[in-house]
Amino acid sequence: MKAFKIPEATVQRLSIYSRYLHQLMGEGEDTVSSGQIARGVGVSSAQVRKDLAYFGEFGTRGVGYKVDELYGYLMEILGLDHEWNVIIIGAGKLGSALALYQGFRERGFVVKAILDVAENKIGSTLGQLRVEPLDVLEKRVKEYDIHVGVVTVPAQEAQKVTDQMIQAGVKAILNFSPRVLKVPHDVVLRNVDLSVNLEVLSFNMVQYK
Amino acid sequence: MKAFKIPEATVQRLSIYSRYLHQLMGEGEDTVSSGQIARGVGVSSAQVRKDLAYFGEFGTRGVGYKVDELYGYLMEILGLDHEWNVIIIGAGKLGSALALYQGFRERGFVVKAILDVAENKIGSTLGQLRVEPLDVLEKRVKEYDIHVGVVTVPAQEAQKVTDQMIQAGVKAILNFSPRVLKVPHDVVLRNVDLSVNLEVLSFNMVQYK
Repeated sequence: MKAFKIPEATVQRLSIYSRYLHQLMGEGEDTVSSGQIARGVGVSSAQVRKDLAYFGEFGTRGVGYKVDELYGYLMEILGLDHEWNVIIIGAGKLGSALALYQGFRERGFVVKAILDVAENKIGSTLGQLRVEPLDVLEKRVKEYDIHVGVVTVPAQEAQKVTDQMIQAGVKAILNFSPRVLKVPHDVVLRNVDLSVNLEVLSFNMVQYK
Repeated sequence: MKAFKIPEATVQRLSIYSRYLHQLMGEGEDTVSSGQIARGVGVSSAQVRKDLAYFGEFGTRGVGYKVDELYGYLMEILGLDHEWNVIIIGAGKLGSALALYQGFRERGFVVKAILDVAENKIGSTLGQLRVEPLDVLEKRVKEYDIHVGVVTVPAQEAQKVTDQMIQAGVKAILNFSPRVLKVPHDVVLRNVDLSVNLEVLSFNMVQYK
């Protein structure tokens, strides 16, 4: 399948393009050129055309793209044309921050539950959510039809809670722990290392010197 | 300057390669091939060679790369051959989580101060740090020779604290707020949208279906 070979950097840019198109829709724009998208998000127009070409012919030469049509295609490609239910394991500072993060819901990711083992965290409220004990993991995954599990537990607990989530039916894991996780082939895994963001900055600071 | 054209995706991969090389050093490996790096981090070996070629000739044909040498080069390229001092503005859940995030210090980013305006946060401790009032921003930036400012305040406050940091001498901004920030040309800015990580997952879930 062709779609398997889409570079992750392209997927990230599609996400950024879709935000820009959403902004244009809000401003009442009907059509947009690759050059305009490029300037709007800070990449080259050749890059925009190349990224969109992975998914077939979208635009009309000399006219550009219909904003709402392209936005709809991108949201569909990104799997954002419907909601995804999310569970967070670990109600520490990062897990709590993610549970309250507005940006998730805006893009269709609905945090349905947050679990922890710590007695002093269980029962505390985070917005609409109440932290629940880890024991209810399987029950909540099934009850809420959870697709995505977010791991923010300490490294030594990460594989165990991941296994439990997968056992219960979770199909995608977003791992914030520093532990390298093993998942079956039919489960999607993404590791987030927040320091990469700082490293892109330090690279650029060195280049500017 | 050639270095200005390095794609950000390449910089991110260099960061990932460097972690893998560090792991190999820990395992006592002396040399490594591009194929081995590729398998270790999950990209093609052509991609590894292309990424490294941006920075000149590293390896020896048929032998590969010297692990410690390549690691040293990458850390230098990434600006990680010395420490960077960091200030966090906003001691909410995300700011607090970042202040305690072990991964930053491991890569040479030292959080020296965290500031907030909220009376109930000022004075609370986060590991070695104590939350201080926003008033001391300029003083702390100068005193601690801060290079990087992390913005985790609400959208409506983000530009103001960014301006204050730049005024005080900060040269790089990592923005977690949803606000689009304006910075001068000599300041490096990076916006972090945590939901992009979930979108890469949803893209892959849709492809796997």
